[in-house]
Amino acid sequence: MAESMQGLHRSHRCTEVSNKNIGETVTVMGWVQKRRNLGSLIFIDLRDRSGLLQLVFDENNGEVFEKAKNLRSEFVIAAEGVVRQRSGAVNENMATGDIEVTVNTLRILSEAETPPFPVEEDANTREELRLKYRYLDLRKPHLQRNLKMRSDITTFIRKFMSNEGFIEIETPTLCKSTPEGARDYLVPSRVHPGCFYALPQSPQLYKQLLMCSGFDRYIQIAKCYRDEDLRADRQPEFTQVDMELSFVDVDDVIDVNERLLKALFKEILDVDVQLPIQRMTWIEAMNRYGSDKPDTRFGMELIDVTDVVKGCGFGVFTGAIENGGSVRGLNVKGQGAMPRKKIDKLVDSAKGNGAKGLAYIAMHEDGTIKSSFAKFMTDEEMDNLIKAMDGQPGDLLVFAADKNKIVWNVLGALRLELAEQLDLIDKSKFNFLWVVEFPQFEWSDEQNRFLAMHHPFTMPMDEDLDYIESDPGRVRAKAYDIVLNGSEIGGGSVRIHQADVQERMLKALGFTTEAAHEQFGFLLDAFKYGVPPHAGLAYGLDRLVMHMTGEDNIREVIAFPKVKDASCLMTEAPTAVDAKQLEELSIETIDVEEEK
Amino acid sequence: MAESMQGLHRSHRCTEVSNKNIGETVTVMGWVQKRRNLGSLIFIDLRDRSGLLQLVFDENNGEVFEKAKNLRSEFVIAAEGVVRQRSGAVNENMATGDIEVTVNTLRILSEAETPPFPVEEDANTREELRLKYRYLDLRKPHLQRNLKMRSDITTFIRKFMSNEGFIEIETPTLCKSTPEGARDYLVPSRVHPGCFYALPQSPQLYKQLLMCSGFDRYIQIAKCYRDEDLRADRQPEFTQVDMELSFVDVDDVIDVNERLLKALFKEILDVDVQLPIQRMTWIEAMNRYGSDKPDTRFGMELIDVTDVVKGCGFGVFTGAIENGGSVRGLNVKGQGAMPRKKIDKLVDSAKGNGAKGLAYIAMHEDGTIKSSFAKFMTDEEMDNLIKAMDGQPGDLLVFAADKNKIVWNVLGALRLELAEQLDLIDKSKFNFLWVVEFPQFEWSDEQNRFLAMHHPFTMPMDEDLDYIESDPGRVRAKAYDIVLNGSEIGGGSVRIHQADVQERMLKALGFTTEAAHEQFGFLLDAFKYGVPPHAGLAYGLDRLVMHMTGEDNIREVIAFPKVKDASCLMTEAPTAVDAKQLEELSIETIDVEEEK
Repeated sequence: MAESMQGLHRSHRCTEVSNKNIGETVTVMGWVQKRRNLGSLIFIDLRDRSGLLQLVFDENNGEVFEKAKNLRSEFVIAAEGVVRQRSGAVNENMATGDIEVTVNTLRILSEAETPPFPVEEDANTREELRLKYRYLDLRKPHLQRNLKMRSDITTFIRKFMSNEGFIEIETPTLCKSTPEGARDYLVPSRVHPGCFYALPQSPQLYKQLLMCSGFDRYIQIAKCYRDEDLRADRQPEFTQVDMELSFVDVDDVIDVNERLLKALFKEILDVDVQLPIQRMTWIEAMNRYGSDKPDTRFGMELIDVTDVVKGCGFGVFTGAIENGGSVRGLNVKGQGAMPRKKIDKLVDSAKGNGAKGLAYIAMHEDGTIKSSFAKFMTDEEMDNLIKAMDGQPGDLLVFAADKNKIVWNVLGALRLELAEQLDLIDKSKFNFLWVVEFPQFEWSDEQNRFLAMHHPFTMPMDEDLDYIESDPGRVRAKAYDIVLNGSEIGGGSVRIHQADVQERMLKALGFTTEAAHEQFGFLLDAFKYGVPPHAGLAYGLDRLVMHMTGEDNIREVIAFPKVKDASCLMTEAPTAVDAKQLEELSIETIDVEEEK
Repeated sequence: MAESMQGLHRSHRCTEVSNKNIGETVTVMGWVQKRRNLGSLIFIDLRDRSGLLQLVFDENNGEVFEKAKNLRSEFVIAAEGVVRQRSGAVNENMATGDIEVTVNTLRILSEAETPPFPVEEDANTREELRLKYRYLDLRKPHLQRNLKMRSDITTFIRKFMSNEGFIEIETPTLCKSTPEGARDYLVPSRVHPGCFYALPQSPQLYKQLLMCSGFDRYIQIAKCYRDEDLRADRQPEFTQVDMELSFVDVDDVIDVNERLLKALFKEILDVDVQLPIQRMTWIEAMNRYGSDKPDTRFGMELIDVTDVVKGCGFGVFTGAIENGGSVRGLNVKGQGAMPRKKIDKLVDSAKGNGAKGLAYIAMHEDGTIKSSFAKFMTDEEMDNLIKAMDGQPGDLLVFAADKNKIVWNVLGALRLELAEQLDLIDKSKFNFLWVVEFPQFEWSDEQNRFLAMHHPFTMPMDEDLDYIESDPGRVRAKAYDIVLNGSEIGGGSVRIHQADVQERMLKALGFTTEAAHEQFGFLLDAFKYGVPPHAGLAYGLDRLVMHMTGEDNIREVIAFPKVKDASCLMTEAPTAVDAKQLEELSIETIDVEEEK
């Protein structure tokens, strides 16, 4: 049975006790990590949030010794005793490895059944079981550390931004649904039958309105929601570090964020971020890395050989070029002897990314080459191509030929896959990069119209303003992403603050005047009454913390995450609800087998 | 048309310019508060978040002067100019009242139509209009100040709690629906047709699980949701400062919170909170103030005269007593001459609070009395009653006789009403009070069962544990509320950490074992694997900020509040949504006139 802790008061957390306390009486409380019986002595490793401390029970203290015999893993106890130099060998792996506490008083605050999996690192437990018993999984040191670091990160960000004059303002989470963008989570209204709120995909419109209100600098660490299929780095609810600034341009946003990142990484990880962070235009990022979030921790850049192979004998190349596409290659240094089977796998994954195939030249150390397309080329054509690729004996050259978008995607993905395979990435590095000058619009074959690449409130670059109607594809935006090690950790833009430009933009995106006003009327209205130039940025906090903790799944930095089907294995949410609840909301479920 | 700010960089906010800058060139940006033309000069009050600054345009600078003629209220401008001693009279009411900026360069960044109401304090604008154009309303200094103070408050709380070893952990907002408590907001699931998430009413269960996980000290400033009808101090979404601590009892929670409140009020308002804060049991609060959240800024306490009038000739009194009730009174000092009409109003509001009537004795200055019930009493009975009430010539004595609950409610409300009427409250005071030892259960006539007064996880007091089954009504809880000026700003309790006590509690609340496990199974499961004693508290942040800013409506401390019917007048949320969206969610609306 559970005993009360009445009359006892914790004096230290486990690792707050040290050899400075030798001879003192302390009271510690925590979980039994493990018990060892050594004849007349019982040893307990006591665990709390701070770490482990060894407790000793001596059979000379009969009553307490007998009680200690009952202790099992995960029992919660309170122990009062005297700190002593450790009697056995010092444990170098433990902060308190040179001391122990000889217990005089023991209370069992809570007993424990044998847990469904051992509460220790590297226990080989299925993730489903870990998530069902998340409260046990969270006892593990790495999750304790991750969530502590997450808390430290947000605490630091808030402090830094507050010092920079940012005001934290909470925006609503019961919002208006807007069809543009990802799928909304909806909330039926009881008071307004047939009507729904939407959970926010971001506080975008609200923060722009706050700039209209003159708050000047806004920050919020805000919950956001997207009802989309999940991936390793995506949850139905996620957290943004969201900011907006008035009377600024691109450089001002970048400046404050660079200083934030430098200070944050120094404070939390003792990592020095070199400023200024490199900036790269979107087009350069695509051309060099085949990605708008390039991992710059390694080279192996894309090489454009379109001009070299133009007019060559290989129809795959020339056909792509004639269709307005390009031919680009990667030089996989030192991999000329890659087995055919492995090359075939590369071809397969290229096809998975939309390529029709992958051409290659394997350059052997002896100077001979093997190529999938040499027979279509003259020797001179081959020589020129190899030269353009800086091919050396021992190298593997791979090529994709198609529309630019496909070539970039294919080679960008291949580059990452090869880097992983060949272990080219220095995982200790934190490589930051600004990607700037994104296209304003993105053509959607599916919807047969232009979509906003960032969102409809992004300001075009001044010199491209004239092309919104005449040539949307060439309009670049005052948009920027901050990329860390090949992952987009944040992004933002300067916003349109002129009502007329905003209306042109919405028109270019296919909104009728009515539709625009129905959806964004309050923003367009606000724009009539004096709007400051403004710009902002939002970080994906989960992803940022994931990188800073060195995890590769955001579930490891979220206390109670959901799984791929957006359910919670611990609470079993979502669940069926009482018919009465639905009735009050004036909704009913369809296409569901009813419980009779 | 809007000009660009390209090439300009704001050097100061308005009130960052001072007479120390005289002779310097500054660049300021903001909104035109007002324009005055004085012949050869135009004066503009420029407004930004920091305050106002006077700009001067001289007709000798022709081009800029001409441009300045176009400026109207709420235009957004950038102005570069030289700081000078003010040419006219110094304005003592303005931080920058002794200086002005003679403008050399003017850019109109955004024009403005005439706003639907003037952007200035004390403009007599309907609240509906203010909320529809919330982005304009938010430009007013008091809302700017309120939201800034709200940000300062949360920043300070986070810093303080972090220093106290609390870790901020985000808990999910797509949760499992639990019928107990207030009405949930539901979120239909797309992936699981027929199933719903609920938005959290509080992070209660999650924070208890975090204690099971060993996080030891948790804090979160969390959005919570209740689908209930709104009042002046209630919104559908509200913010809690939520905390939980392990290995503690009541005193530990109170200790850290008293230090927090003291530090917070000192930092934000320069108000000294005297520690320790007074503690009062629930029963004492009810007996003395007729309220579990007494306003102690004034006296006029309830006086129990049950024993005095027992057996008197007035049937209303004796009847109430015979029914197990009581007779209590208020001595309204110096109001013996209150006009009959006013007294009748008091009787009306007492009836509104459930009283059958209100008995009174008006004591005139000349020694005579007028009473609604003197005719039923002997002179001696009257004398004894007046003596028990400490009645003096000039006093008004009012009495309620009924069941205790009704008597408390009636006199508690009357006490507040009279204090307001008679201006008894010193509004500059911040009176804190802990109310402790709440009843564990509250009988519901409606549901014909006991309900949990706080929630089902609240620990009974040790000495009352035995009465959970036999006499639930007498069980007191280890629960505490923190009251400020008659308003509950926070509350919490020690939690049950023993699986067996928790099961008994749920049983006493009418849960079958199955129902308990269906709803709280994961918590009851967690209790099997070692639970530390734990306790917590949550503040209603909106209400706390309301008190600290001196507002009497929480809408004044929320950026984008909703109105009584839970709608947003600015965005018009909630709204109808596309049929396609509902179809994807496998729901349809009922009882709603369909749009054909």
